[in-house]
Amino acid sequence: MTLQVGVIGAGMIGREHISRLTHKLTGAEVVGVSDLNAKEAERVAAGIPSAKVYATGEALINSKEVHALVVTTWGPTHEGYVLGAIEAGKPVFCEKPLATTAEACLRIVKAEIASGRHLVQVGFQRRYDKGYRALKKAIDDGVIGAPLMIHCAHRNPAVPEAYVSDMAIVDTFIHEIDALRWLINDDYVSAQVFTPRNTRHTHAKLDDPIIVMLTTKSGVHIDGEIFVNCRYGYDIQCQVVGEEGVANLPEPESVLLRREGKLSTAIGQDWKMRFIDSYDVELQDWIGAAKTGKISGPSAWDGYFAAVTADACLAAKRTGARTPIVTPPRPTFYD
Amino acid sequence: MTLQVGVIGAGMIGREHISRLTHKLTGAEVVGVSDLNAKEAERVAAGIPSAKVYATGEALINSKEVHALVVTTWGPTHEGYVLGAIEAGKPVFCEKPLATTAEACLRIVKAEIASGRHLVQVGFQRRYDKGYRALKKAIDDGVIGAPLMIHCAHRNPAVPEAYVSDMAIVDTFIHEIDALRWLINDDYVSAQVFTPRNTRHTHAKLDDPIIVMLTTKSGVHIDGEIFVNCRYGYDIQCQVVGEEGVANLPEPESVLLRREGKLSTAIGQDWKMRFIDSYDVELQDWIGAAKTGKISGPSAWDGYFAAVTADACLAAKRTGARTPIVTPPRPTFYD
Amino acid sequence: MTLQVGVIGAGMIGREHISRLTHKLTGAEVVGVSDLNAKEAERVAAGIPSAKVYATGEALINSKEVHALVVTTWGPTHEGYVLGAIEAGKPVFCEKPLATTAEACLRIVKAEIASGRHLVQVGFQRRYDKGYRALKKAIDDGVIGAPLMIHCAHRNPAVPEAYVSDMAIVDTFIHEIDALRWLINDDYVSAQVFTPRNTRHTHAKLDDPIIVMLTTKSGVHIDGEIFVNCRYGYDIQCQVVGEEGVANLPEPESVLLRREGKLSTAIGQDWKMRFIDSYDVELQDWIGAAKTGKISGPSAWDGYFAAVTADACLAAKRTGARTPIVTPPRPTFYD
Amino acid sequence: MTLQVGVIGAGMIGREHISRLTHKLTGAEVVGVSDLNAKEAERVAAGIPSAKVYATGEALINSKEVHALVVTTWGPTHEGYVLGAIEAGKPVFCEKPLATTAEACLRIVKAEIASGRHLVQVGFQRRYDKGYRALKKAIDDGVIGAPLMIHCAHRNPAVPEAYVSDMAIVDTFIHEIDALRWLINDDYVSAQVFTPRNTRHTHAKLDDPIIVMLTTKSGVHIDGEIFVNCRYGYDIQCQVVGEEGVANLPEPESVLLRREGKLSTAIGQDWKMRFIDSYDVELQDWIGAAKTGKISGPSAWDGYFAAVTADACLAAKRTGARTPIVTPPRPTFYD
Repeated sequence: MTLQVGVIGAGMIGREHISRLTHKLTGAEVVGVSDLNAKEAERVAAGIPSAKVYATGEALINSKEVHALVVTTWGPTHEGYVLGAIEAGKPVFCEKPLATTAEACLRIVKAEIASGRHLVQVGFQRRYDKGYRALKKAIDDGVIGAPLMIHCAHRNPAVPEAYVSDMAIVDTFIHEIDALRWLINDDYVSAQVFTPRNTRHTHAKLDDPIIVMLTTKSGVHIDGEIFVNCRYGYDIQCQVVGEEGVANLPEPESVLLRREGKLSTAIGQDWKMRFIDSYDVELQDWIGAAKTGKISGPSAWDGYFAAVTADACLAAKRTGARTPIVTPPRPTFYD
Repeated sequence: MTLQVGVIGAGMIGREHISRLTHKLTGAEVVGVSDLNAKEAERVAAGIPSAKVYATGEALINSKEVHALVVTTWGPTHEGYVLGAIEAGKPVFCEKPLATTAEACLRIVKAEIASGRHLVQVGFQRRYDKGYRALKKAIDDGVIGAPLMIHCAHRNPAVPEAYVSDMAIVDTFIHEIDALRWLINDDYVSAQVFTPRNTRHTHAKLDDPIIVMLTTKSGVHIDGEIFVNCRYGYDIQCQVVGEEGVANLPEPESVLLRREGKLSTAIGQDWKMRFIDSYDVELQDWIGAAKTGKISGPSAWDGYFAAVTADACLAAKRTGARTPIVTPPRPTFYD
Repeated sequence: MTLQVGVIGAGMIGREHISRLTHKLTGAEVVGVSDLNAKEAERVAAGIPSAKVYATGEALINSKEVHALVVTTWGPTHEGYVLGAIEAGKPVFCEKPLATTAEACLRIVKAEIASGRHLVQVGFQRRYDKGYRALKKAIDDGVIGAPLMIHCAHRNPAVPEAYVSDMAIVDTFIHEIDALRWLINDDYVSAQVFTPRNTRHTHAKLDDPIIVMLTTKSGVHIDGEIFVNCRYGYDIQCQVVGEEGVANLPEPESVLLRREGKLSTAIGQDWKMRFIDSYDVELQDWIGAAKTGKISGPSAWDGYFAAVTADACLAAKRTGARTPIVTPPRPTFYD
Repeated sequence: MTLQVGVIGAGMIGREHISRLTHKLTGAEVVGVSDLNAKEAERVAAGIPSAKVYATGEALINSKEVHALVVTTWGPTHEGYVLGAIEAGKPVFCEKPLATTAEACLRIVKAEIASGRHLVQVGFQRRYDKGYRALKKAIDDGVIGAPLMIHCAHRNPAVPEAYVSDMAIVDTFIHEIDALRWLINDDYVSAQVFTPRNTRHTHAKLDDPIIVMLTTKSGVHIDGEIFVNCRYGYDIQCQVVGEEGVANLPEPESVLLRREGKLSTAIGQDWKMRFIDSYDVELQDWIGAAKTGKISGPSAWDGYFAAVTADACLAAKRTGARTPIVTPPRPTFYD
């Protein structure tokens, strides 16, 4: 049985997911597309024989031909579409953020629980990255013993002027926020933010770099550097220090060169290429899960937890103080 | 349009390709299976709704429902099936070897040329490995200048008793034979084989390790170590020395560990896992090529050239002498 | 001219320095030894034809035969011997700590300034390590631009029961305290200490690991992990993040092994071996400097600054708060 | 007791050794210098208070003030000076080559045996390199089991016009010739030379690169690449493949940089710097050995064996054939 997917949002990421679902992955086809910009939706659908254009996301959600939804619109619209999908009883893959406020995320969580079915998956693709999975396997297998500390860094070569301070948390570090608690099966309890002096390559509205310190329930200490004008490349580092050893996220495979006085491997410049394979794995996994009705990727609760954590980081940055990360207890629904 | 594929041979590799075509790749479905062991064919086909069992490979080749063939039977049967597919005008993916003698390979080459269409692809999957592709790209981009030498090694942790000396060439080094000439866009002109003293871990019918030296038309010197009882892991190394620099095949991605006095990454034990991703890429590429009728992977000529080279290596091993590698000029059909 | 050296303290480090001065280094000879334990001094001096035993450190300091002093006694005695050497106008190499309190260090600083001559060098040997020097050169040469952050770790495989919490600062991290400000030519302005949950391999009187955060005048953010029961080895890591790139302290040279499924290099277990070469370079440098009267190694001011910083770290650990690091302005004498 | 050394030859290497003996090493002093160019000898001796100028090497050898000799003159003069030192019963350190022909080396061997004392050490400094020593220790400790193959490369960034084909063997590969048999405690029995196509960066009188293949008594297969216009740096690689694992010569310590899209370490350009430390260790070791009368470094026999091997390589290059390496049995004197 082919999963008939409706995609809400025909922007860059939407088009990529449509292409992925149509040409690379197996078991799904795109049967409907909608976009605020109807022309864009038509242009995209024109290339996909199976796809019709729907006037609104709501129409798409409620179409009988649509088994499952992919939401790739502007963040503020996510809540409505996801709640709609839940109401329609259809699996929905929603790009991050799940919603733009923690409260909205919590509404989704409650709606999903009320529906009695696991329907929502959030687009945190790092959980599907080969390297992160290998790192998690090492940890879960006890290779390094119980985790005590994580040192990590998220570096981009440069960002546009439109990228301002809060985005370092909500757009950039949000990936670490989700990935790290998944990596060590733990939850955060506090956040603190430090601001080293700025690089000369930043601009007036962006503190760069910053350091986010998170602590977890079990007492793990995390320090995460976010440095989005590091110049030299897109570089994701993660070192987990355990009671018996230390494990690092693998460096991406690269030809080893001896040239011009250097022994070197390449560091990519493009964040999209760094995790490109993980998008395929993620969406293929979702197709399978949506068919069986058993979503197992990042859940609505994970999306909510990330939102609460990001809020705490933003507050911590403003105040300089250690800021508690408080949520209701995790519903057993998400165990 | 879905490519309707018939698979001849339901052994281990056949089953893997069937699973791949059915569950992982896009654009194809398995519509027929045949095997000398009819029960095995039935068992396999039972799991694939779209697949019927055919009594013979010939019947499968000539079925109207079958657009393209995958041949994964015992080597000595390859020639007949591939010639049959050419005669039927259908694309055929044939696992290595293309045929068990150079003469048989040449008959396939001639039949394909006579058919006027590129129909045959041989299963040399390394050309689809991410690492080899990155290495080839570096070479083609001129990063290390013109190649002068290649140092490579093909190491297996251990082999069963049934593995005897000739297999080091025809089953093991055959992958290097194909991959290296593709890597540097060159052809071999001579082979010589050296036998260091044997490891104590080998047996009476297997010289292990051996060194194969190949030279190419343009004068590139290749030394290839084949060591199939190296104990420590499955390890493929390839270093290309050029006029401006040196490039190494990437080490596979692996978690970096600090543990028990060692800074280490893992070396896999299993050859199949080492290149597992490349099988997917290879077959997906073939599906696309088969649909458009433009096979571009390893050709019948490549299969023939590999066979001639392997024969020369075997002769060189027997005589100890430098042995010429002689073929007719490459037909323009394969340019 | 041979530098005639008197060594005060014939314990383990004293004996090593005596051996070094006698057998490995050039330009000096040990002419006198003293120790609280006279028998020990006699035993040591017996092996060195040029060396006499002196009843007290003071006698040694004031002996006409002694040109320069090496102090390797118990910390609380350092102040007296160093002040004595200054008074005698003789160069003195004092193992860390310069003195056990910041006040005592400051008294030494003042005495040295009053003497008008640079006479004191403190035994911070990392400044003489090949790897640290290469790292400093890269920074000084502008290879990574202006430093913004330093991430470092000081890990020991295990410590004895006698090692308690404060020692993580005053005995262990003290090396980073001196080395890092030298590395980036900067001074610290604040310290904060974080305590992740303890490893199960620690004991009741030792918080392990801890994280020390230092900030500098120019705004560089430093996070230093101290983990003295890390199990896997003695491992010193230091990464400096600059405006144009990132530089890591080199890993020590080690044979690269492929063995038992691992690609590995060795991590040493013994802190003394890790920096063994630097002790030679350090003392050889001091011999030359003592002869010319121009000490250029870690100065009394550096010893004082380290003491003040260590005190701030200890206070920060007790309070959990960000603790200012305050000293008088650096005297121009030390520019 | 200070070893009073006479240095014959005040050229570049001579001056370096004189400086080393005077300023860096312990236990020796230079008491005499001679050079064909008397002015040069005078200029050099002027800087060393302990050193007198001698009119001839012979005068120096026979001076009562001289305990031991260092010979750093032009190759063709080595035999005479070394024989003279043996006759005088004085330890002599002779830079490579021991003599310019195998026959001359054998005369030295015979003279030394006749003298009944081990007096001669040849300047093959790699045996004193930290990395080679670590590699040898791993082999001797059985870490990789019995050696079966060695793959190595000797690459220089460029050579002057005066450097012609034979020098690739007698000046460059000679270091591998000595080091590899020491590394695996084995002797060579045959040599063969292969000539890949030349790099465009070579000139008419230099085949570059070449591959030398050596086999040993125990059947170890060695392939050595010599590539002296490799452009990218001075790079010495050595991989020993054993029955249980594989060991590589360590890469020299180097700051790891992330910069401009590359993760890199530096490859040096200067051969002298690559092994600079080993010269110190070598000569310091020789000082100690000369004092006790027990030379244990590379012996006259090693110098002779290297000469015979180099001759065989030259012959092999001319003929293209596998060329036996034949010497009389090793005298028990050298066991």
